[in-house]
Amino acid sequence: MSTPDTAPLIEVLGRAARRAAREMARASTGQKNAALLAIAARLRGAAPDLLAANQEDVAKARVAGLDAAALDRLGLSAAGVELMARGLEEVAALADPIGAVSELVTRPSGLQVGRMRVPLGVVGIIYESRPNVTIDAAALCIKSGNAAILRGGSEAHTCNLALAGLIRAGLAAAGLPAHAVQQVETTERAMVGAMATATQYIDILVPRGGRSLIERLIQEATVPMIKHLEGICHVYIDSGADIAQAIAIADNAKTQRYGTCNTMETLLVHADIAAQVLPALAAIYADKGVELRGDLRTRELIPGIGSATELDWRTEYLAPILAIRVVEDLDAAIEHINTYSSRHTDAIVTRDYARALRFLREVDSASVLVNASTRFADGFEYGLGAEIGISNDKLHARGPVGLEGLTSQKYVVFGHGEIRR
Amino acid sequence: MSTPDTAPLIEVLGRAARRAAREMARASTGQKNAALLAIAARLRGAAPDLLAANQEDVAKARVAGLDAAALDRLGLSAAGVELMARGLEEVAALADPIGAVSELVTRPSGLQVGRMRVPLGVVGIIYESRPNVTIDAAALCIKSGNAAILRGGSEAHTCNLALAGLIRAGLAAAGLPAHAVQQVETTERAMVGAMATATQYIDILVPRGGRSLIERLIQEATVPMIKHLEGICHVYIDSGADIAQAIAIADNAKTQRYGTCNTMETLLVHADIAAQVLPALAAIYADKGVELRGDLRTRELIPGIGSATELDWRTEYLAPILAIRVVEDLDAAIEHINTYSSRHTDAIVTRDYARALRFLREVDSASVLVNASTRFADGFEYGLGAEIGISNDKLHARGPVGLEGLTSQKYVVFGHGEIRR
Repeated sequence: MSTPDTAPLIEVLGRAARRAAREMARASTGQKNAALLAIAARLRGAAPDLLAANQEDVAKARVAGLDAAALDRLGLSAAGVELMARGLEEVAALADPIGAVSELVTRPSGLQVGRMRVPLGVVGIIYESRPNVTIDAAALCIKSGNAAILRGGSEAHTCNLALAGLIRAGLAAAGLPAHAVQQVETTERAMVGAMATATQYIDILVPRGGRSLIERLIQEATVPMIKHLEGICHVYIDSGADIAQAIAIADNAKTQRYGTCNTMETLLVHADIAAQVLPALAAIYADKGVELRGDLRTRELIPGIGSATELDWRTEYLAPILAIRVVEDLDAAIEHINTYSSRHTDAIVTRDYARALRFLREVDSASVLVNASTRFADGFEYGLGAEIGISNDKLHARGPVGLEGLTSQKYVVFGHGEIRR
Repeated sequence: MSTPDTAPLIEVLGRAARRAAREMARASTGQKNAALLAIAARLRGAAPDLLAANQEDVAKARVAGLDAAALDRLGLSAAGVELMARGLEEVAALADPIGAVSELVTRPSGLQVGRMRVPLGVVGIIYESRPNVTIDAAALCIKSGNAAILRGGSEAHTCNLALAGLIRAGLAAAGLPAHAVQQVETTERAMVGAMATATQYIDILVPRGGRSLIERLIQEATVPMIKHLEGICHVYIDSGADIAQAIAIADNAKTQRYGTCNTMETLLVHADIAAQVLPALAAIYADKGVELRGDLRTRELIPGIGSATELDWRTEYLAPILAIRVVEDLDAAIEHINTYSSRHTDAIVTRDYARALRFLREVDSASVLVNASTRFADGFEYGLGAEIGISNDKLHARGPVGLEGLTSQKYVVFGHGEIRR
């Protein structure tokens, strides 16, 4: 909720964003791309200043006692600045989604009815310490013709304000409103709540951060959100699967990176193939230091490991720990996944055509894969070109969200004087 | 919020709906169509019982002092029963949206990535006295593979329970779970609030009713809604428009029906053409008993009419009243519409190509029409085949909502053993 302190601030930001949003909705593709490229050029030019601003943030954070992982996320290098600039150029190279008319049909009335893609309006983005989010989020909002209100983490505040200045300059250079992207200038924590309830000024909220931020927003937010809670992802190895393929996928899905949301957290194995894959996999996981926790039948095949409880099926470890369960058949696997999965990403390894199709249809998750590692579930691998976030929700946007998730479709009707009888 | 009375009830309904939703998601097109046709056959067979049940409701409502308009909405005739049965048959004839995979592309990784249309899960529908909504809503939920919890108006309760019995029997006859469509069996008003906050059991809420219901739900609901608030619709007559066409459209948009949400409430006229169209239109409106309220320049052209105030620009009359404003140019028209429109439906009458395209792009409403009456903005005219409601929102569903609005898309990935490097 807005407090007496935040209410005037959110009103100033919100009104400016609404005005800018109208101009951005009209902006040509050329103008939007010119702004993105102008920001990229300014970023490269200002690299020394940005690194100095970041050093200031890092020094303060060190004094404040931030842990090593958080300091790592906060840190910005010359290579990091170059990556941000290239990110802007990549978004400039993407097709402009705005104005595209699809599904145009001629109706018996004579009217031609289609749907035109349009911006949402004002996007609110709440994120933590990574400074690159400021640029990535600004780029996607500009390209999709939206205005943005960015609320970055207080640790990165000096650098974020410097980045916001470059963005404003780039927008103005392209003849677009400088207020199209606004960085909240106070680090007051109450601004998070104020943004989350500013339904009159913000059309969609994209929180990017840890579980505590998201859980707080689920309680407080009345602005609709594209939110990503957690990734409890599964691989199910079907009977008759290609053994080498199954082992490679189960290995990759768990060990390629431990801390990502599309990492496998529970492995399900059909009883008929368990004896062929589990001992081999156990050796690989042991080599890589992955702790295994299994149900009774798993423990019979991999002696000495801990037992998996109900709590394990519900846990996103984000760590070298894996829960394993032997299941009777495809139905049991789907039942387990639809009960315990966070509906993020789940995969089957199979050679059976009908079971592959049933898994694709019946598993109720944002991404469902056949014979591929869960690690592929992201916006870049899916070809979205860029990713503003990943949605665990079913409404509006599901799974990796790119430019299209920041747009809506309105009906457009081409008539010739038709009236209704 | 759930009260001590409603909490156990919503839990029973919700758990049964969740179980049924899983089965409905797997149901074949043939099964779903068989259920729809079985319900249609049972409706026709039970027509005398339904009319008797409705008579009981109407008698009670008359004693309770319902006004004539409400009694009219509540009443059911033999023709009305036949219309419901045909509605079921029409929904059975629509293409099944579920399982369709679109946008399938092959990525550099070798993966084929597409999007599969899937049901949302459980749809909650809250409506008032019209008994036909029970059947229309059930039909759309069944066809889209969802489960439904229906909360009809207390006035129509006897008839709604009879309809719910026929729906259950039809579902069971097709081998589908009878609990896929549940009618709330209590008329307690608290159930509305309980449904609106049952986020664990209901995925989307579709309120169909008057302003007071919607405004209550905007305050209370935490379940996402497809909601329709009001239709403050505009026609803008551009300079150089075809005079006869402009007059026909402005007449039709206001007078074809007064009480519908896509009826024009404000007419905007370019200053250069006002003298050519307004006097002729005033004569037509006078003939039909439409009260006009104009700004200063309108009153100069149509002497004797009342003056339009700021409040008129913001009012959905749903009555033979029309506000008129003369504007300087297209920009002023778009500015007026984007300020006062309820973002429902707005139309331009023009012969100018560039201005037609600008109006389509820049008016931020769910339906934007060129040279056609606003009265065309509905699901049937747009070819959706059926309509569960109209959305004034931008997220998920915008404008008339058909089967597709009750679905979501998940990513499906066809692999060949790919792992991520």
